[in-house]
Amino acid sequence: MWQNGGTAFKPDANILRHLKAKRQKQRVLAEVKLRCLWGHSKNFEDLDTFHRAIRPYLCLAQIFGIMPLSNVLSRDPQEVKFRMRSMGMVFTVVFLLLGGLKTIIVADRLLTVGLNAKNMVGLFFFIMGMIICASFVSFARCWSRLIVPWSCLDILMLFPPYIPPKRSLKYKLRLLGTCLSIVAMVEHALYYASGYYSYRMHVLHCHTNHSRITFASYVQKEFADIFEIIPYNIISVFYAFFLNGTFTFIWNFMDLFIMLVSLGLAQRFQQFARRVLKLANCFVPDALWSDIRMDHVRLCELLELVDFSMSVIILISCLNNVYFICNALLAIFTKLRYTINYIYFWYSLIFLLTRTFLVFLCASQINEASRLPLKALYMIPSESWSQEVQRFAQQITNEYIALSGCRLFYLTRKSFFGMMATLVTYEFMLLQLDAKNRRAGLPELCT
Amino acid sequence: MWQNGGTAFKPDANILRHLKAKRQKQRVLAEVKLRCLWGHSKNFEDLDTFHRAIRPYLCLAQIFGIMPLSNVLSRDPQEVKFRMRSMGMVFTVVFLLLGGLKTIIVADRLLTVGLNAKNMVGLFFFIMGMIICASFVSFARCWSRLIVPWSCLDILMLFPPYIPPKRSLKYKLRLLGTCLSIVAMVEHALYYASGYYSYRMHVLHCHTNHSRITFASYVQKEFADIFEIIPYNIISVFYAFFLNGTFTFIWNFMDLFIMLVSLGLAQRFQQFARRVLKLANCFVPDALWSDIRMDHVRLCELLELVDFSMSVIILISCLNNVYFICNALLAIFTKLRYTINYIYFWYSLIFLLTRTFLVFLCASQINEASRLPLKALYMIPSESWSQEVQRFAQQITNEYIALSGCRLFYLTRKSFFGMMATLVTYEFMLLQLDAKNRRAGLPELCT
Amino acid sequence: MWQNGGTAFKPDANILRHLKAKRQKQRVLAEVKLRCLWGHSKNFEDLDTFHRAIRPYLCLAQIFGIMPLSNVLSRDPQEVKFRMRSMGMVFTVVFLLLGGLKTIIVADRLLTVGLNAKNMVGLFFFIMGMIICASFVSFARCWSRLIVPWSCLDILMLFPPYIPPKRSLKYKLRLLGTCLSIVAMVEHALYYASGYYSYRMHVLHCHTNHSRITFASYVQKEFADIFEIIPYNIISVFYAFFLNGTFTFIWNFMDLFIMLVSLGLAQRFQQFARRVLKLANCFVPDALWSDIRMDHVRLCELLELVDFSMSVIILISCLNNVYFICNALLAIFTKLRYTINYIYFWYSLIFLLTRTFLVFLCASQINEASRLPLKALYMIPSESWSQEVQRFAQQITNEYIALSGCRLFYLTRKSFFGMMATLVTYEFMLLQLDAKNRRAGLPELCT
Amino acid sequence: MWQNGGTAFKPDANILRHLKAKRQKQRVLAEVKLRCLWGHSKNFEDLDTFHRAIRPYLCLAQIFGIMPLSNVLSRDPQEVKFRMRSMGMVFTVVFLLLGGLKTIIVADRLLTVGLNAKNMVGLFFFIMGMIICASFVSFARCWSRLIVPWSCLDILMLFPPYIPPKRSLKYKLRLLGTCLSIVAMVEHALYYASGYYSYRMHVLHCHTNHSRITFASYVQKEFADIFEIIPYNIISVFYAFFLNGTFTFIWNFMDLFIMLVSLGLAQRFQQFARRVLKLANCFVPDALWSDIRMDHVRLCELLELVDFSMSVIILISCLNNVYFICNALLAIFTKLRYTINYIYFWYSLIFLLTRTFLVFLCASQINEASRLPLKALYMIPSESWSQEVQRFAQQITNEYIALSGCRLFYLTRKSFFGMMATLVTYEFMLLQLDAKNRRAGLPELCT
Repeated sequence: MWQNGGTAFKPDANILRHLKAKRQKQRVLAEVKLRCLWGHSKNFEDLDTFHRAIRPYLCLAQIFGIMPLSNVLSRDPQEVKFRMRSMGMVFTVVFLLLGGLKTIIVADRLLTVGLNAKNMVGLFFFIMGMIICASFVSFARCWSRLIVPWSCLDILMLFPPYIPPKRSLKYKLRLLGTCLSIVAMVEHALYYASGYYSYRMHVLHCHTNHSRITFASYVQKEFADIFEIIPYNIISVFYAFFLNGTFTFIWNFMDLFIMLVSLGLAQRFQQFARRVLKLANCFVPDALWSDIRMDHVRLCELLELVDFSMSVIILISCLNNVYFICNALLAIFTKLRYTINYIYFWYSLIFLLTRTFLVFLCASQINEASRLPLKALYMIPSESWSQEVQRFAQQITNEYIALSGCRLFYLTRKSFFGMMATLVTYEFMLLQLDAKNRRAGLPELCT
Repeated sequence: MWQNGGTAFKPDANILRHLKAKRQKQRVLAEVKLRCLWGHSKNFEDLDTFHRAIRPYLCLAQIFGIMPLSNVLSRDPQEVKFRMRSMGMVFTVVFLLLGGLKTIIVADRLLTVGLNAKNMVGLFFFIMGMIICASFVSFARCWSRLIVPWSCLDILMLFPPYIPPKRSLKYKLRLLGTCLSIVAMVEHALYYASGYYSYRMHVLHCHTNHSRITFASYVQKEFADIFEIIPYNIISVFYAFFLNGTFTFIWNFMDLFIMLVSLGLAQRFQQFARRVLKLANCFVPDALWSDIRMDHVRLCELLELVDFSMSVIILISCLNNVYFICNALLAIFTKLRYTINYIYFWYSLIFLLTRTFLVFLCASQINEASRLPLKALYMIPSESWSQEVQRFAQQITNEYIALSGCRLFYLTRKSFFGMMATLVTYEFMLLQLDAKNRRAGLPELCT
Repeated sequence: MWQNGGTAFKPDANILRHLKAKRQKQRVLAEVKLRCLWGHSKNFEDLDTFHRAIRPYLCLAQIFGIMPLSNVLSRDPQEVKFRMRSMGMVFTVVFLLLGGLKTIIVADRLLTVGLNAKNMVGLFFFIMGMIICASFVSFARCWSRLIVPWSCLDILMLFPPYIPPKRSLKYKLRLLGTCLSIVAMVEHALYYASGYYSYRMHVLHCHTNHSRITFASYVQKEFADIFEIIPYNIISVFYAFFLNGTFTFIWNFMDLFIMLVSLGLAQRFQQFARRVLKLANCFVPDALWSDIRMDHVRLCELLELVDFSMSVIILISCLNNVYFICNALLAIFTKLRYTINYIYFWYSLIFLLTRTFLVFLCASQINEASRLPLKALYMIPSESWSQEVQRFAQQITNEYIALSGCRLFYLTRKSFFGMMATLVTYEFMLLQLDAKNRRAGLPELCT
Repeated sequence: MWQNGGTAFKPDANILRHLKAKRQKQRVLAEVKLRCLWGHSKNFEDLDTFHRAIRPYLCLAQIFGIMPLSNVLSRDPQEVKFRMRSMGMVFTVVFLLLGGLKTIIVADRLLTVGLNAKNMVGLFFFIMGMIICASFVSFARCWSRLIVPWSCLDILMLFPPYIPPKRSLKYKLRLLGTCLSIVAMVEHALYYASGYYSYRMHVLHCHTNHSRITFASYVQKEFADIFEIIPYNIISVFYAFFLNGTFTFIWNFMDLFIMLVSLGLAQRFQQFARRVLKLANCFVPDALWSDIRMDHVRLCELLELVDFSMSVIILISCLNNVYFICNALLAIFTKLRYTINYIYFWYSLIFLLTRTFLVFLCASQINEASRLPLKALYMIPSESWSQEVQRFAQQITNEYIALSGCRLFYLTRKSFFGMMATLVTYEFMLLQLDAKNRRAGLPELCT
């Protein structure tokens, strides 16, 4: 019986994936049948699946050259696939080339000046942009393997006995995306405002030729590295702004994407918990408990699949956030010249901290929702308590269900606290050093 | 059966609260009936409930403008509610206005001088006062939702089979409150004493005009920021002292309040443990075990309700304590001029450490008491061991019952040790830096 | 049935102790009977109990003024009790007075010079001596409550079905004690040797009057604080050396005592594990498993009793060791003048690290031995697996059996690793600072 | 029944080993019989055992003087034994003597110059080489006790119902060994290249006598300590290079060896998991579950045996890696003169980090593979769920299966993350200090 299928197992390290792949295929088939029964693909479109909710973000990402997928607008998750020859891929290659060029120019400049802890941050920003883009391309390759089983599970959980949530997933994701985008755009605008004001003041005080106080001359200084290569005209200015904007977009999109995926998963775990909680005081036959437990296993498998594909992105996101927060903390007591510089610095720091917090908060909802059914199981009266329920309880207790960064750490509140505790300790160290050697005032303006 | 009630579940993230709310309402009804049976509300007053024990502290808090509740003196917990139009709210608004003004003045002064690690502590103190006050207002809104089920549980646990504790809750809370108040008042008095002595000595040595050595002139210097705005007279002096006192009160009250609530909860968990321990060597029918387990679930639900409402206050309290301890550690090797300065510094530091320790100690009693029944369960003979007992044992083992700061950390001995270990490491770093660059003596007195 | 005995429970926080006390008394009675049956108290003396093994150490401790117990040489553990009016107490009071005086002198000297991170270590050493002595007096008060149940358990485990270990407990404790004493004495001698050599060289190079190069003059300099008060003669010299020796003894004895107690407990847990392991492949009736589980509970209760009494001593011991290790690490790159100084410094540091390691190693054996029976339980064939065995397995899995420092941390390998990791990080910080600001050579010899 | 065999247990602390030893001997006997049945020792040789896969590495190690075993080329694991009088031992003694001499010379040189944080690294390298060699000799003594039971288990798992993996163990180990060797050799070559280039440039700029720019003169300078003792000729040059190479080999071999052993163990755990996963949806009789559980126990026992023997090596390896990584991080912002210096520095650092990462990655596979069967157990339908399966599930849940460094820490992803987090924090501290006191440019070349 158990000697039959040695061939079914590719003997590589990732044994489990094969088992899952098999079961997922079965579910895909079931889903295709389901759709045929409905007849109308319009109905399918109306369902509040994660695919429908994430679609606008995938389109947006494609324009900026990350997540190159073909048929990204399609209603059918099976048609959204990674293809080497697609429009998305063209955008990606263009961005990788231009961005790579920019990165090389910045690196070259810094290496001639001499790399140190302070000016490294700029180079780090551009290199990170390249790495993030590459990770997303690699992630896009797994996308269809991910979204098809996810959609199946979504469809399963949009019909009774599961109750759809009051606020649709689409609404939640759109709300989060819109809010974060606005805040990020303000941050990006403040960056230019702060830079331009400083430039303006510098010219006003140190130069006699005040005709240079134009936005154009500021742009020329800000993007000096680009205008060394290509001449200054409206297209090249647009190009310079767009490239900078894209890097900032990528930087923010990574965190936003983790949040969106987390919300999508947490939603399903919450629906599942709600279903179990409703059964708390009812008599439930063993067969139903068995079904419920299998749904739990399916949810966990989906989570593992997502975790497996996104691990690298999560790891990079956390490294990135920790580096930029530390960098900002380092400069927290540096005196700045103008109020706008202060506004930009603090806005930027608080934005960074909030974004990091939101990533952990959204992702930790999965872990929290996954433990909720336990409360219902405690309520079950003695008569209804069976081996099946006990297995379910033990399964929930023993598993650790959360998104992770290459399983090095898990995105939970506890990890966030550990990270914050380290940062606070670090800041206190700086505080103490600051209390010792008080820095002098601002350096001379016109040098 | 389980398809019936989609409407019963508001589909927001906090699923469990609804279930609890429902059950709590049932218990409130049961309690109202209970009271009608007794007939005498006097009897009700005699019961050693947490509501009766915490009442004096709520009154006190109201005078200082935090916890604005109406009918705070009422014997019936259901009548103590948050109302926008109440005397408490007036006090709160007045304090928020005056305190806000003070904070703005202090902030303005510091920003003109230049904010650094050393002078930041004053501003932090006032801003924290504002934040704490706001958190308590927000907490007061949850109060009635909290105290009603708590009182029900209290009443339940004041009658057999539960044995009331030897020392009443009221006595314990009053003892703790009195001791801490006295110590805190001494600390506050020492602050003025230390300041006045330094001022006096400074005038004696550096000024020829010794007529300025009066307490009045010290007050004028100490509250210079206030007397810039309003003229110096007996009322404004009282106002200055009162405002300062209120901030100090709030600062201490927050920690005291966490301790009181912890004691109240720990008491009930201990009573519960005692009941279970008494059953260790008896034959107990399954139905009774089931009842006991349900009481445990009720206790846990109450704890979760409290934790949900107080999380923010606990988080702020810990942040606050850590900051002030670190700040004091930073100054531990600074040379001071007079003995009274040393006395104030060390008294203040030890007070701070003790208060923090007490917060963790009181709160960790909940966690410890919650695990005690396990010992009794180990003693149960084979014959009496049933599935119900096993479920109870597993429940206690798997749950983590403790107050938390937004679930980022739990108030347990282990967390306290982690916090202390970090602080000790930090202090050793300072020690080492101190051993390197020995500071010179005291700066000139008269500059 | 369960309403009968409210009076049996003193309603204080330490509920469990009463239950234990009761059961322990029953066992004491059983043991007294047992002894009557044997008739010969000589036989009792021959038993390898912990009481017999620790006795010489208690005698030694008494001479140095710690652990004041009366009838310390008695063969009957019930007769060894703390009494206010006893010879031991006299020694203790004398030591506390003389030591207190010495501490005050040292403190006074340092405060006039100015306390800093470097000279603090001396004062810390003496204050610690006082605190340790006080903790041991407080511990001595619990001794009889501790040793009587322990002896009962010892007697129980010295007869079949338990197999006495090959090496007797007495032998093990004596071996450890002897080795550590010799190493500690060498360390103490090296301290004087290093001091004397430095003194001698200093006189040789900086003074013309070489007649001062005598041991007597060194002693006068070393104990200058004492000879300021009492005249220099043979008795006062002896007194000076004795007092210094006593402080060093106390310092070492604390750690040794924790090791001895740990070994005593670990021995019993190992015997217990051996018994269970022998049953691995046999058929064992449920009643026997129940007996075995009760023995396990008894062992755990003894451990808890010991932990409750010794917690403070363990906490102090760890704090003490961490402080002195950090202090030594701080000075690791300081240049020393003579080879003997280097020998003393490194010998002392390695001794300190080894002693700390041994404390954790001995204590962690308890935790490790307590988990051994689990291995046997895994081996039990399906037919013999019963609810009783399952309860036993779950009990071992869920409990955390180890000595602790006020339950803030547990004496296990993991804690030791955490401590060492922190120390190594700390040392790396120092290393880095050392790499930056290279210190100049040695300071001038003759200043 | 259970009173019969007190003699079977040597009453030392390591109780479990005896039980294991007994069972392992039984298995050895079974295996010898098995071999007799086959008749052909050639067949035995064809089996993909760990012994066959590790053999080439043992031979290589022997030439460099570590792992002195006799009959290392034998096909029979029982014949590979540690013998005091063997060729391997001669190599080892020679290396220990010559290496010891070199270490003493280096130590002597440094102590005269003055040991500090920067030049310590060289001495540390040589002392570590000596310690590693000694640990391997001590490990070689346990080898035969380790490889015989391992081979038995290997043979067991190479036949049905276990499925041999697609890629043979031999192939995997050879691939890993080859890759790492090449990368390590490049690193070693770069060391000389970087040194030679710096030397050449130094002579070119600072000396008029350019005839000294030969490789021979570089060698004389590089190995100045050796040529002070023995004259410069082709043999002594070879000796100098060989000794240096051997130290580097040992340094790398230790990490490689841990990886190889981890892969060997992880392979078996993966095979085991695959077998269990195949049974997920089948009906399996209890007797088979019992057999499977016993195989699991056997695997765990093998792991414990390996862990017990290799603990010290793992501990030393981690300490070694942490020290060298920290040392490199310390120098990360030091300006270097030539590009080849940068190439060597960064190549070396990345190599070090990768090697450390690989050690943890390989070893963590054991832990991960050991938890895989749990997934299959969750899938078992209610009807097939029996006590035997439940025991299996609880066993996997409760045990912590991983290689450890003296049980102070476990080689898992979590530990690696902890280590990296500490290193990153450390680096941020350096970063901050670097940002403060900017170092001046390069020191003068010709001094």
